[in-house]
Amino acid sequence: MKINENLKSHISHSTSKKYLDIYREELYERVIPFWLKYSLDKKHGGYFTCLDEDGKIYDTKKYMWLQSRQVWLFSKLYNTVEQKSEWLRTAKLGIDFIRKYGVTPEGRVYFSLTRDGKPHHIQRKIFSECFYVMALSEYAKATDNKKMLNEALKIFKKILIWSKDLSLVGRPKLNGIPPSSSLAIPMIMLDLTDGIMKAHTNLNYKKIADNCVREIHLHVKKNIKAVLENVGTDGSLLNSPEGRILNPGHAIEAAWFLLHYNRKKQDKEIEKTGLQIIDWSLEKGWDKKYGGIYYFLDYKNLPPIQLEWTMKLWWPHTEALYALLLAYNITNNKKYWKQFEKIHYWAFHHFQDKKFGEWYGYLDRQGNKTHTLKGGPYKGCFHVPRFLLYSIQLLEKKINNTY
Amino acid sequence: MKINENLKSHISHSTSKKYLDIYREELYERVIPFWLKYSLDKKHGGYFTCLDEDGKIYDTKKYMWLQSRQVWLFSKLYNTVEQKSEWLRTAKLGIDFIRKYGVTPEGRVYFSLTRDGKPHHIQRKIFSECFYVMALSEYAKATDNKKMLNEALKIFKKILIWSKDLSLVGRPKLNGIPPSSSLAIPMIMLDLTDGIMKAHTNLNYKKIADNCVREIHLHVKKNIKAVLENVGTDGSLLNSPEGRILNPGHAIEAAWFLLHYNRKKQDKEIEKTGLQIIDWSLEKGWDKKYGGIYYFLDYKNLPPIQLEWTMKLWWPHTEALYALLLAYNITNNKKYWKQFEKIHYWAFHHFQDKKFGEWYGYLDRQGNKTHTLKGGPYKGCFHVPRFLLYSIQLLEKKINNTY
Repeated sequence: MKINENLKSHISHSTSKKYLDIYREELYERVIPFWLKYSLDKKHGGYFTCLDEDGKIYDTKKYMWLQSRQVWLFSKLYNTVEQKSEWLRTAKLGIDFIRKYGVTPEGRVYFSLTRDGKPHHIQRKIFSECFYVMALSEYAKATDNKKMLNEALKIFKKILIWSKDLSLVGRPKLNGIPPSSSLAIPMIMLDLTDGIMKAHTNLNYKKIADNCVREIHLHVKKNIKAVLENVGTDGSLLNSPEGRILNPGHAIEAAWFLLHYNRKKQDKEIEKTGLQIIDWSLEKGWDKKYGGIYYFLDYKNLPPIQLEWTMKLWWPHTEALYALLLAYNITNNKKYWKQFEKIHYWAFHHFQDKKFGEWYGYLDRQGNKTHTLKGGPYKGCFHVPRFLLYSIQLLEKKINNTY
Repeated sequence: MKINENLKSHISHSTSKKYLDIYREELYERVIPFWLKYSLDKKHGGYFTCLDEDGKIYDTKKYMWLQSRQVWLFSKLYNTVEQKSEWLRTAKLGIDFIRKYGVTPEGRVYFSLTRDGKPHHIQRKIFSECFYVMALSEYAKATDNKKMLNEALKIFKKILIWSKDLSLVGRPKLNGIPPSSSLAIPMIMLDLTDGIMKAHTNLNYKKIADNCVREIHLHVKKNIKAVLENVGTDGSLLNSPEGRILNPGHAIEAAWFLLHYNRKKQDKEIEKTGLQIIDWSLEKGWDKKYGGIYYFLDYKNLPPIQLEWTMKLWWPHTEALYALLLAYNITNNKKYWKQFEKIHYWAFHHFQDKKFGEWYGYLDRQGNKTHTLKGGPYKGCFHVPRFLLYSIQLLEKKINNTY
């Protein structure tokens, strides 16, 4: 993308420093402490994630997406910020629980367990396994554990096969289901491949990643300036609610996955696509009346079938904030900085909780909280601290002029 | 329940007549015409249910709960109102489609099909089959088709077995799932048994119905004045979001199922339970700030995990309206009439569409429409016309003093 030189700007050192301070304070004084204080199950291992605003446990079930994500997060902190023994101990509490109770002999990972590790639910999807690979790889790195890294690789290879044929994880094969591609799959496979599998030189890393990028591109539709969540396997439009649905926060997450991948690749086309996805998703996704990013939209403005489509969830905002900071760092285009600041204020105003820490997760369209919870079956120690950590690392690099 | 004689009242003939006229006009001039005009797929058979406010089709998939419910509704109209050939033709369009494409050799019924009948989704639940039995039985009655009635009975007997062990319909058996009872199952089984299976004298009808009533009672908790959606198989409380969740509209529907069943039974205890459920559910379920009935509530006021819990859906209101009319007819207690009128005005104001007919389905907590659709994967030709039809029949009986 040709940047208009007039729009280029350099945000002052002090402005960058202001956000760096805010983000550091938020991460280290309010978000991480919340999870350390309330989520650890020292009796049975693993983490409670169903926590009300004050940390009160309202469900003791162990949700496995979130067990793995919390292991990943604390391992990442240990690997990239500081080798604090508390962080490694916290990661160990989770990884031990998952490995002891969460994995079937076939390498499938449950969706939820009881507090003491009995299986409660298994999905006909591959995400529990993907997050487990993320957790294993990052924790293995923290502990320099080759065996565990190989375990991650073994499951990763299974996921590669399952992701092409979900009947292998129990999804019925029915001949009325159109052959289709769901954005979530190449996205997470790219993230796994790019961020986690680097250590494995015996894996044809480049080919897998390139395939993911190619499949993500099938979802990117320049003519409608949108990223479709579901398309035909050839990228064709599916004329159904599933085929028309947009998830702007999810598309923006895909954008920064692409931009991360492109750090090494340095492909101008990928950069352009990543930036366009951010532009389009905020253009369509930002609610001009009440602010905030819609959860879902139908690109033809037909009725989305998701009841919650107008709601404002925390994670599309965290993804947008980091993506905008990254886009600004890549382009120096002031529009990204302006949007970053706008969303920063909206998100901190609506989601932040200075009293107990961590963010609220769910607002109605008008921005009123619908839920007091800080964690649930799908919200854990992940999107808020990941965005803060990555943003801090970007701002630090910027301030040190090393990016 | 001892009715305070002072509260007894007799709503005047003209007041009853006013509502009768409103409901007749709504049913026969706006609701039935909507479905007749927009839902019939004369090319492939069956019904479109994904219809926007003006009847525009936004998805051509055939949702099987709704195919069966629409067959049931038109057969019911034919059986109880008038033997209109258009109504029977409409029912036939659906039942032929379901029987041709919707049923597996094992007697399972898909959740959705493509427009031309290819299977698209099958649930690990028994509701598609239950609604199919409803459709078959009512259509068989309309056409005096003994063979079809036996077909209904055959599937009903399978459902009786499946409902006790959902692993038979593919639900994984996992040892962390507490043995539990879901209110929906005895409710629908009671409705099937009570309303539809009467014709089958070879079935131990009374025993099955009594078992359903007994199981429903496990969910009715006098100490907390609430009906829990999920309890242990012995009625014990489950300390989890699933165990604490209330669905006031669903409980009210269960209440009128009990009161219908009790028309023959005339058991004062069942009557008392039915009336209490209505009282409690409206006490807890009515939103005192914005009006309307909440979709879900946690009885301990902990965070419900359903994102849509604060939303106002059409069907809890239709169920409440009919239940209140029924409760008033049984007791002559003015409080039920007052509540009926309050909810009538709220519901008609928020959901009715005088322009195109049928009701809107989904509002946010404040009562703003979140969706323009009149039908979707879970909203079809059922709750609105059923409540109108049953209410009309009740008001007619009242006016004729035959009830």
